[in-house]
Amino acid sequence: MSAVASSLARITLDARARSRQTTTKRGQAMRAVPVATPRSFSFFKANSLKAQAPTQRAARATRSFVVTAAHRPDADAPDAGKGQRVMIIGGDGYCGWATALHLSKRGYAVSIVDNLCRRTMDDQLGFNSLSPIKGIHERVRRWKEVTGLDIDLFVGDVCDYEFLGAAFKKFNPTSCVHFGEQRSAPYSMMDRSRAVFTQTNNVMGTINVLYAIKEFAPDCHMVKLGTMGEYGTPNIDIEEGYITITHNGRTDTLPYPKQGGSFYHLSKCHDSANMLFCTKAWQLSCTDLNQGVVYGLSTDECDMHPDLVNRYDYDAVFGTALNRFVIQASVGHPMTVYGKGGQTRGFLNIKDTVRCIQIACDNPAPKGDMKIYNQFTEQFSVNELAAMITEAGQKVGLNPEVITVPNPRTELEEHYYNAKNSKLQDLGLDPILMRGEFLETLLKQIMEYKDRVDQRLILPGVNWKESSSIATTMSK
Amino acid sequence: MSAVASSLARITLDARARSRQTTTKRGQAMRAVPVATPRSFSFFKANSLKAQAPTQRAARATRSFVVTAAHRPDADAPDAGKGQRVMIIGGDGYCGWATALHLSKRGYAVSIVDNLCRRTMDDQLGFNSLSPIKGIHERVRRWKEVTGLDIDLFVGDVCDYEFLGAAFKKFNPTSCVHFGEQRSAPYSMMDRSRAVFTQTNNVMGTINVLYAIKEFAPDCHMVKLGTMGEYGTPNIDIEEGYITITHNGRTDTLPYPKQGGSFYHLSKCHDSANMLFCTKAWQLSCTDLNQGVVYGLSTDECDMHPDLVNRYDYDAVFGTALNRFVIQASVGHPMTVYGKGGQTRGFLNIKDTVRCIQIACDNPAPKGDMKIYNQFTEQFSVNELAAMITEAGQKVGLNPEVITVPNPRTELEEHYYNAKNSKLQDLGLDPILMRGEFLETLLKQIMEYKDRVDQRLILPGVNWKESSSIATTMSK
Repeated sequence: MSAVASSLARITLDARARSRQTTTKRGQAMRAVPVATPRSFSFFKANSLKAQAPTQRAARATRSFVVTAAHRPDADAPDAGKGQRVMIIGGDGYCGWATALHLSKRGYAVSIVDNLCRRTMDDQLGFNSLSPIKGIHERVRRWKEVTGLDIDLFVGDVCDYEFLGAAFKKFNPTSCVHFGEQRSAPYSMMDRSRAVFTQTNNVMGTINVLYAIKEFAPDCHMVKLGTMGEYGTPNIDIEEGYITITHNGRTDTLPYPKQGGSFYHLSKCHDSANMLFCTKAWQLSCTDLNQGVVYGLSTDECDMHPDLVNRYDYDAVFGTALNRFVIQASVGHPMTVYGKGGQTRGFLNIKDTVRCIQIACDNPAPKGDMKIYNQFTEQFSVNELAAMITEAGQKVGLNPEVITVPNPRTELEEHYYNAKNSKLQDLGLDPILMRGEFLETLLKQIMEYKDRVDQRLILPGVNWKESSSIATTMSK
Repeated sequence: MSAVASSLARITLDARARSRQTTTKRGQAMRAVPVATPRSFSFFKANSLKAQAPTQRAARATRSFVVTAAHRPDADAPDAGKGQRVMIIGGDGYCGWATALHLSKRGYAVSIVDNLCRRTMDDQLGFNSLSPIKGIHERVRRWKEVTGLDIDLFVGDVCDYEFLGAAFKKFNPTSCVHFGEQRSAPYSMMDRSRAVFTQTNNVMGTINVLYAIKEFAPDCHMVKLGTMGEYGTPNIDIEEGYITITHNGRTDTLPYPKQGGSFYHLSKCHDSANMLFCTKAWQLSCTDLNQGVVYGLSTDECDMHPDLVNRYDYDAVFGTALNRFVIQASVGHPMTVYGKGGQTRGFLNIKDTVRCIQIACDNPAPKGDMKIYNQFTEQFSVNELAAMITEAGQKVGLNPEVITVPNPRTELEEHYYNAKNSKLQDLGLDPILMRGEFLETLLKQIMEYKDRVDQRLILPGVNWKESSSIATTMSK
């Protein structure tokens, strides 16, 4: 059973091998009928079925065998987005670039707004993307050459309201997808000035976007990227944004309690709270997407030409667990599990990120009522990731090893984790699964770049407890 | 029954007159045995006893007749604070100034850190304090003359870390009381630049304080002023900072869900979340005080010399409901109730604010475990305030009137409200009540300044829905 790798207990490779299945894309795979092993059943019950009424379960079981390539039959048609004008803030970044191309290819008019600070951070810290990415001007020109499609480019900072207002007036978006934030937890914990930068840049940038929508495009739908990390690791099920609480005999549905685990995660909590207020006070149309950890390099559009390749971060600051592990396995470096490795999170393929954004753009939130979706497809512990990569690595001729390194973060290393993620699937998301073929393909893809790997960048360099006012450099 | 004025229903003056009693200070007055009217009993039950075990109830009923002038017998002794060094950030403001003098008088070594921006805001907006306040340098010199006590003065901005670090190193505080934030909801809603200023100033200032404690005074207890407004108006009881939630068969105690109703209130939510994270990650000692609406002008120390008088704001931006109503009643202006007037909030006398801070300083939170207290003594609706002031005004020869003006805010005008506030009283706070003599005294005090009232400042000038990117001035 392909999607059932999540559990609180550490799983042996043996157990995993038993439950393995092909990972080709299938409709509602996470809810498909499980292989009848005790472990699979237990996961399946805990994660998907427990709180559902029998009729819901039946509906999903049926749909899981319908081929729904995307959220609507024409979602991949070249005019699928006709009439929609999507401003992508942070469109030069990992998720933003892939999204810009995905939407452009499907007939959405796309603009990219970006101050390119992510590239500056790499320069300052001595990092590099594994894949050799081109400059944004060259990327956009190449896209036009390859597809004949225009992407409007606004290079500037959303914290500069004069710039942002001018971009809104010129482009007149119907949707504004806001990826334009400092997105690394370790970066936000490096030192005081980066903590302050992260919260100022993210929170004030989002306030500016909210004001720009109010002022220049009041009907524009704001699609904002949050993170699953806003919820922390509570000992109860994680709902999608809101939770109904009965307390002392009364009941209300309230924002789900947040427990951000770094200044970065907290900045996203602050954004969500600010957005919720503005949505109500100004009757805006807003969707908040609490995204899991994104992995993978390929999308159909980024693969169209080498100059369109997406960035792939593997350093200890911007590289997330899976992407880092894949690099480590490829170059013969042991995979570095932080602490006990029971840390469990939601994950999704970059190909699902771009589809989720398309679904969000196609389904604007009603004014005054903020929609919140948990945007991930599967949940795994760090140990499970390492075990899956070990298995996939062995299939492609590698011999991956796992080592434990002291956890530089302040986080629970063993905990309950059960996050809901049905809303985007209810709108038609058809998840791509991590296990098996996908990982083998990714490993092969990464091995092509292995000469570009700087192994000095892999080990953790930012300790949560040691964050100080003295500016940190990563050079050693 | 003096403390039982809170209810969801609009109360007639007649009903209030029946339940009235003197407002002299008494031990645990809010929990004293109520006058046996159905209304009193109903309030009493709903607000204090419902969730308590019988033994707790008995303990409180007993203590309510013990005369506890403050939280410990020697709390008002001239050496009560011996050995404690308290840095008061925002010590030139309304709460900060009164607190600085209160603690200084009781033997705490006190320093004031303030950039005086509250005075600049008055200058920029054409406002003035009703009471003629002196400059901070003159205030501190006069305090020394009157009492022989020194207050160290650091004029600068906590957003400037170099300055803040120097102040920490020089003063070496054992407690840091952080009032130093932009504290007006309407100010934060005036325009985009003030929204951004409010969140930048408040959130980044607090991050700096957290880093300064971590770096220069790791044993220093941080006492941070939050606001009851962080909770919004949920349809369930408001607990003190945390709530235990049972959901799908599992239970956890989590941060209480927040719903700030302005960029100001939201800035305090963000502060609380950042503080909670730092408390755990860095094992700091932090107390978060969610304060209600503070009212009153006098404290024993501010009354010692005319040059020590506290500020009294009555404009529509910085003046809170009660203080504004008292001015309106004094000068013959109808009291301006926003909308239906059922908006209910927690209130406390400035004399209780200063005692709460002393209690907090005397009871440092254990490292790594943030304490959160709701710092208010009584809850009233706006209509109840207006009715109480009408009654008190008539006793001092005034004829107050009430008018309804369109509500400039986005808020519920009729709602459930039941906020817990027992923790500070468990530590010994002996609440001063609003009703009766206190209001008559305040009205007389304010009437002495009535020639200084600028009636143009009273009507609401900031509309939540109209907040825009164009800088607002209040001149008309």
